[in-house]
Amino acid sequence: MTDERKVQEVLARYVRATDARDGKAQGALFTDDAVVQIHTRTNAGGYDPFGEPLIGGAAVQYAVENFMEPHPEGGFSHHVTSDHVIEVDGDRAHLNAQFIVFRVRARRRPQTGWPQGAFGAQGSVEPYESGYYDTDLHRVDGEWRIVRHDVLLDMPMAVPGV
Amino acid sequence: MTDERKVQEVLARYVRATDARDGKAQGALFTDDAVVQIHTRTNAGGYDPFGEPLIGGAAVQYAVENFMEPHPEGGFSHHVTSDHVIEVDGDRAHLNAQFIVFRVRARRRPQTGWPQGAFGAQGSVEPYESGYYDTDLHRVDGEWRIVRHDVLLDMPMAVPGV
Amino acid sequence: MTDERKVQEVLARYVRATDARDGKAQGALFTDDAVVQIHTRTNAGGYDPFGEPLIGGAAVQYAVENFMEPHPEGGFSHHVTSDHVIEVDGDRAHLNAQFIVFRVRARRRPQTGWPQGAFGAQGSVEPYESGYYDTDLHRVDGEWRIVRHDVLLDMPMAVPGV
Repeated sequence: MTDERKVQEVLARYVRATDARDGKAQGALFTDDAVVQIHTRTNAGGYDPFGEPLIGGAAVQYAVENFMEPHPEGGFSHHVTSDHVIEVDGDRAHLNAQFIVFRVRARRRPQTGWPQGAFGAQGSVEPYESGYYDTDLHRVDGEWRIVRHDVLLDMPMAVPGV
Repeated sequence: MTDERKVQEVLARYVRATDARDGKAQGALFTDDAVVQIHTRTNAGGYDPFGEPLIGGAAVQYAVENFMEPHPEGGFSHHVTSDHVIEVDGDRAHLNAQFIVFRVRARRRPQTGWPQGAFGAQGSVEPYESGYYDTDLHRVDGEWRIVRHDVLLDMPMAVPGV
Repeated sequence: MTDERKVQEVLARYVRATDARDGKAQGALFTDDAVVQIHTRTNAGGYDPFGEPLIGGAAVQYAVENFMEPHPEGGFSHHVTSDHVIEVDGDRAHLNAQFIVFRVRARRRPQTGWPQGAFGAQGSVEPYESGYYDTDLHRVDGEWRIVRHDVLLDMPMAVPGV
């Protein structure tokens, strides 16, 4: 497998872990001193940091397990990444990708069965978040791991009461 | 071309055939004894089989030609796959990918021309189905073909009257 | 890096330039005699050319700088490409990809702060355009550049008053 594909698959595993709310799998993708920072887009087209950085895979795991909203019953999500630009230089790599996050909400089957006229998938799929991932990775003991991960959100994040 | 890319392009051809409702092109991607099964996600996060499996490329072709809803006039779809994880081992490969399906509905141009203020693309694009494809492939006579294809839907499927 | 990935990354840079309305970066991806043509899908499933072709990278740059609608304050877009089929033959390549375009509109933070109950990303992400890119590239002085680019839109485009 080419290094570019290996690097891209780190991100593929990242989004699966995020959507499954699997903090352990998520944390294992990062080095112990990885720096993870969320940013939000300014009106001028730059970015402001949002909150404090997370440092290391254990902090990523803790954040997934404690701060990510659990899916409601019948709920799921897909973090879809695309249009990756990847540069590998020996044991170092840089990755930039677009992402769109989709919220899935399944409809519960009525006890009396699906209504007349219902056909196909029952529920909704809607995009609600987007941006870029900009990420550095190092090869450590033969495995590509994330050492810097910037989440560049297109939209502001609400913090209740702030 | 790397084997990983060849495998990924089988899926790229699969979604084109699906969106074009091209049963022949779709069936040709599968071996004669391929097993295709749709599943729907349970509230507990597992999957239940939905309906009976299709066996072999000819059955896939028949299903596309007879059971897939045709596009209405001005209608189209895009099955978008992303974040592929692919393992190749000799003449065998495993593929896992996310998918989101979009429904496209073009607006028909009024006989009097587009209304004042209309600008850009006329119609709608909306996601309505999502999940994972989990697929095994074998290399047969130099071509990668699907031997097992599980469609893991996030949402339940309505069967009228059931 | 494999040639297939290099070719795919040309498209990744194309969508970034489009979304950033960066005409110079966009134009640099095309040769001087590249032919760029937009098409819209007919009800019969074929395509009609829409408008005149653009010839060469300078014309592409001019079009991005003068004819693309600027993003409003808090607005952005993502041209997401997927399911690439790429054939490389020496210094020539052919690329076909699906695309979905998403419109992002950030909500402006009220002067009194986010309202009670607001949580997460504030704004909307919605798909509004889709189709296929069908593209030929040549390797020129070691760099892959676009020589033909057909944008195959699924929906008609409104031209005010026509």
